[in-house]
Amino acid sequence: MAFGWIDEQAELRRRAGLVRTLRPRPADSPLLDLASNDYLGLAHHPEVTEGAARAARTWGGGATGSRLVTGTTELHGELERELADFCGFEAALVFSSGYAANLAAVTALGPHGSLIVSDAGNHASLIDGCRLARGTTQVVAHAEPDAVRKALQTHEGPAVAVSDTVFSVDGDAAPLAGLAEACREYGAGVVVDDAHGLGVLGDGGRGAPHAAGLAGADDVVVTVTLSKSLGSQGGAVLGPARVIDHLVNAARTFIFDTGLAPAAAGAALSALRLLRREPERAARARAVAGELHARLTAAGHQAVRPDAAVVSVRAPSPEGAVRWAADCRAAGLAVGCFRPPSVPDGISRLRLTARADLTDGQIERAVRIIGETRP
Amino acid sequence: MAFGWIDEQAELRRRAGLVRTLRPRPADSPLLDLASNDYLGLAHHPEVTEGAARAARTWGGGATGSRLVTGTTELHGELERELADFCGFEAALVFSSGYAANLAAVTALGPHGSLIVSDAGNHASLIDGCRLARGTTQVVAHAEPDAVRKALQTHEGPAVAVSDTVFSVDGDAAPLAGLAEACREYGAGVVVDDAHGLGVLGDGGRGAPHAAGLAGADDVVVTVTLSKSLGSQGGAVLGPARVIDHLVNAARTFIFDTGLAPAAAGAALSALRLLRREPERAARARAVAGELHARLTAAGHQAVRPDAAVVSVRAPSPEGAVRWAADCRAAGLAVGCFRPPSVPDGISRLRLTARADLTDGQIERAVRIIGETRP
Ligand SMILES: Cc1ncc(COP(=O)(O)O)c(C=O)c1O
Ligand SMILES: Cc1ncc(COP(=O)(O)O)c(C=O)c1O
Repeated sequence: MAFGWIDEQAELRRRAGLVRTLRPRPADSPLLDLASNDYLGLAHHPEVTEGAARAARTWGGGATGSRLVTGTTELHGELERELADFCGFEAALVFSSGYAANLAAVTALGPHGSLIVSDAGNHASLIDGCRLARGTTQVVAHAEPDAVRKALQTHEGPAVAVSDTVFSVDGDAAPLAGLAEACREYGAGVVVDDAHGLGVLGDGGRGAPHAAGLAGADDVVVTVTLSKSLGSQGGAVLGPARVIDHLVNAARTFIFDTGLAPAAAGAALSALRLLRREPERAARARAVAGELHARLTAAGHQAVRPDAAVVSVRAPSPEGAVRWAADCRAAGLAVGCFRPPSVPDGISRLRLTARADLTDGQIERAVRIIGETRP
Repeated sequence: MAFGWIDEQAELRRRAGLVRTLRPRPADSPLLDLASNDYLGLAHHPEVTEGAARAARTWGGGATGSRLVTGTTELHGELERELADFCGFEAALVFSSGYAANLAAVTALGPHGSLIVSDAGNHASLIDGCRLARGTTQVVAHAEPDAVRKALQTHEGPAVAVSDTVFSVDGDAAPLAGLAEACREYGAGVVVDDAHGLGVLGDGGRGAPHAAGLAGADDVVVTVTLSKSLGSQGGAVLGPARVIDHLVNAARTFIFDTGLAPAAAGAALSALRLLRREPERAARARAVAGELHARLTAAGHQAVRPDAAVVSVRAPSPEGAVRWAADCRAAGLAVGCFRPPSVPDGISRLRLTARADLTDGQIERAVRIIGETRP
């Protein structure tokens, strides 16, 4: 029977305790949220939701076509200019998601005959970009510029190194300055995904590349998402204007995809302006992460020192992690739970995200619940 | 220099007259729009834009995380139930775009060791899905069930045939009943992309699979987009509950992507309800397409008889097509323009989309401008 093999896989998943299920949340969820990527607490900010509402009214429910046909509005242009300016790059291009932006950047900058050097800890969307690209991918050891150097040494022709700036599982930061230095020795481009850096790292949340002094460099391309600290949906690629023009002409997830919905563009633009006006939100997200880490380690948990706003806590086993997260939820706390096969290293963990708008009382409550439910 | 090769490619594009540029449109564009995919004219309908605005206010500017973590709201669940019900399938799963839905369906249903039989005219997102999938892809002649049969004959193990229901360039329909028959002879699954069928074909716009009697079949999976006739953004996969459960567990563009923004889900849900209440919109879109085709051929143009709401008009050359579209625009009419390398067959054409809300006067005006600007 067609799709018969699916049942066997489902049975294997069931036996391994690896079944994923969707839990729709109500609008007024009573859970304390340390699971979302809403780092600045902007997704529900009235300026952001009004930005979405206004844009939908003015520009319509959808973009109505590819950005090359009818799907580019002046609103998209405005968002692109302000994003580029904020992060310190010459130009920006907005996509329907961060995932699509990553597919675009890696495929368009990793053409036939090129070498793509990819960090072993990279996000799924970068990995899929490598698989789609016509170039050859070499996966290198996590966060090791020397490994990148070694890979680049043997290659003739165009090359790029691709890395998350903040790795989504453990929240550790990539050695961006070292990575760029290695690439420059070999004339290779740098493509980094600042999904978890934008709004959190750098001066007023300008992101990890800005903090590393790489903003505006002619060999650096940055992808960001509008779905995390900007509380919306969508993605963008930032870089030299010539690279952005190239993407307009060559990136399939740009050319053959409907433009980002005006409401999402409007929400992201409102969030960006709010962040400009209240730059302290970025530092506050980092401070909350530091506070969470300090209290958790003081309570005897094994937590990775956060470089941004993700705090990763080690769990004893995959089953232990699942039970721990479920017990937290039962006690009123939403946390993320990462375990095989979503983690490359086989280590299961709770994943906590610091939000700039968490109060001291909420941080305390979260740490208490995590302690009380420890498996 | 890093990215130096980009300039050479840009120069080649310039010389070939193939440079693509973005033209941001104002909110009050005076152009008569026959270029968007807003087939039912719903993108600006107040119920749809209010649906977006209300959802943003209630649920926030973004979904805040993967649908498996914090990104599933009751609104997403509602949209999934109503979409599945409307199209006649057991279950549905909503994605951030139609592109992501296609990547998900093809990769999750084309595992290692399987055969994916892909129509030569398929959309870029299905092609990218084939390239990302672990199975082996065989591209077969356009719209020929016998070619699918031949490909399936030689394969042992899981197999699927993948096709657009309405091909996006010429607007011709796939022989769905014949395709399903061929697949059933070999126990293969059917995966069809109804991006241009939903809202246009089938009883009240229930789509091409519904019209072909395939809705709800246990060997049929349908992808749709929320960005065309539903005037929003996003995509969905419809099919048996077991297939949908499989996607939740296996599709990387579902697991590792932020959930669809509430505003987009809200707009699509409002559009769907409106279509349910006003089913005649679907027939009207088809009638407008028929009218456009009749008048264009009467005026001596070479136009493909439309199976849905896309009308393709042959242009004399790539340059001729570009000039024609530009002259239409100068005369107040927006039309699409397809030419190499975006068309597999090398034939350049104007692409007109019929909208249910076009008046007879507007149709007449469009045909007149197309005639007057003919190269
Ligand atoms: C590092 C990283 N890159 C890219 C993405 C994809 O962005 P989006 O969810 O906006 O598609 C994510 C998460 O979703 C991510 O964590
Ligand atoms: C046939 C087809 N499938 C899929 C898509 C992608 O859908 P979306 O634009 O919603 O990502 C498109 C167009 O954009 C299309 O024409």
